Order: sequence, then C-alpha cells, then structure tokens
Amino acid sequence: MQVRNIDAVPSQPVDMPGSSGCRVQWLLGEKDGAPNFAMRRFEVAPGGHTPRHHHPYEHEVYVLAGEGEVIEGETPHRIAAGDVILVKPDEVHQFRNIGPSPLRFLCLIPNDAASKSVTVVPECGIESHG
Amino acid sequence: MQVRNIDAVPSQPVDMPGSSGCRVQWLLGEKDGAPNFAMRRFEVAPGGHTPRHHHPYEHEVYVLAGEGEVIEGETPHRIAAGDVILVKPDEVHQFRNIGPSPLRFLCLIPNDAASKSVTVVPECGIESHG
Repeated sequence: MQVRNIDAVPSQPVDMPGSSGCRVQWLLGEKDGAPNFAMRRFEVAPGGHTPRHHHPYEHEVYVLAGEGEVIEGETPHRIAAGDVILVKPDEVHQFRNIGPSPLRFLCLIPNDAASKSVTVVPECGIESHG
Repeated sequence: MQVRNIDAVPSQPVDMPGSSGCRVQWLLGEKDGAPNFAMRRFEVAPGGHTPRHHHPYEHEVYVLAGEGEVIEGETPHRIAAGDVILVKPDEVHQFRNIGPSPLRFLCLIPNDAASKSVTVVPECGIESHG
C-alpha cells in the first residue's frame, strides 16, 4: 500500500506543443507498482488549456475545482467540480480554463499509453466562453 | 465522449458483508465504453466503514472530503482530502470514517475485477482514532 498527499508529489509543467499554463502531478503510476493505470492531477491556469489532441487510449477525468470547457471535436461542454468525463480512444479533445481560478482535475490513463503516439491538431476556432 | 455530473449518477448502498454506512456511485465503467478501468465514488457515513477485505486487483483512491483511516493489514493510516492511496492486489484493507462528516473518495479498479473474487476477513481489532 502507498499513502501520500498531493502536496508531496512534484508538479511539472506540461511542455507538449499546444499546451498553455498547464502543470501535471503523477500521483500514481507504473513505477509505484500500479498494475494497470495511472492517476495524474492537472492544474490549468486561468486562460490556459491542454493541447487539442488525440491518441489511441482513453482518459477518465474527474473535475476537482474551477470552471472550464472540454472540447469534443469542435463542440464545447461546460465543466466544473463534480463533473466526470470519459474521453474515448482517438477522440479529438481539449481542456480549457474559462474561469478566474485554477481548473483542477484528475485524469487517468492506462499504463500502455506510454508506448502510444499523441497527435496534436490545430485549434478548432471555437470562441471561448471566457 | 461522455460528460456527466455526479448528481446524475444513482447512488447504491454497498451490501457486502462487513460494510456499514457505505454508498457507491459507478461514475464510469465498461458499460459506458471505458476500455480498461472503472471509476467509482464512495460515501461513508460517520462511524461507517467498508469491509475489511482483499482481492486480486488494485484500488487507486483519491480522497475528496472527510476524515478517515485506511487500514493496511492491521496498520491504520490517517486520510483526508487530497490524499492518494494505492492498494495493491491481495492486500488486506479497509476504509473507515472517523470524522463527523461523510468520507468521500474515488476508487478506481480494472474492468476485469468483475470476474475476480473478493474475500471478506474479520475485523482486526484496531482501536479507532474516532
């Protein structure tokens, strides 16, 4: 068993092209002995966003705090604390902070994601609600 | 993609022997098209607890609210919001609410857990901090 607080986990900037104002903490993963999937915690600054991208594996997301949008293809959905999102494999998606405070969410992926490619695609031109 | 709020997900009592005051919401799982793992949200009433049990698959847990303990074998660890727990396969474990408000946590499991057996074991006699 491992028990730790999020404050003990280093936060790293997300440096993928198309990312802005995003940091990630790897809370649990393969190197901790997690057999199947990894838990990460993202923090997106006001006005920031993840890349618009797709990949052949899923995300399971739980929104902890803040106000944002998840873009499904070209369709935005408003999200806030207590919202749950399943991004299925190969779906084009992006998370955007449209509120005044950090957007925080958990995002879990299968361990074999590390061996799969990620494709960043151009912004879709949706006007943000922010 | 699926986007939903936790308030739209039915809450069910946990009726496993050894459980007390626990409810569960299946937020995402195989029937939603989640390929590899399921996200559940538990709520344990003050004084309540999950069964003391083990099973041949892992839990990845994120504590959302409340004050509790996770028992690792016979060793209690205090837990509160922002704590993360990896319960490895076959570890004897139990979650207990030792605070005055509901203990809420996410608990993720691999999809193939449904085909595996769960063994409930007697209480270990640890004196709660509550």
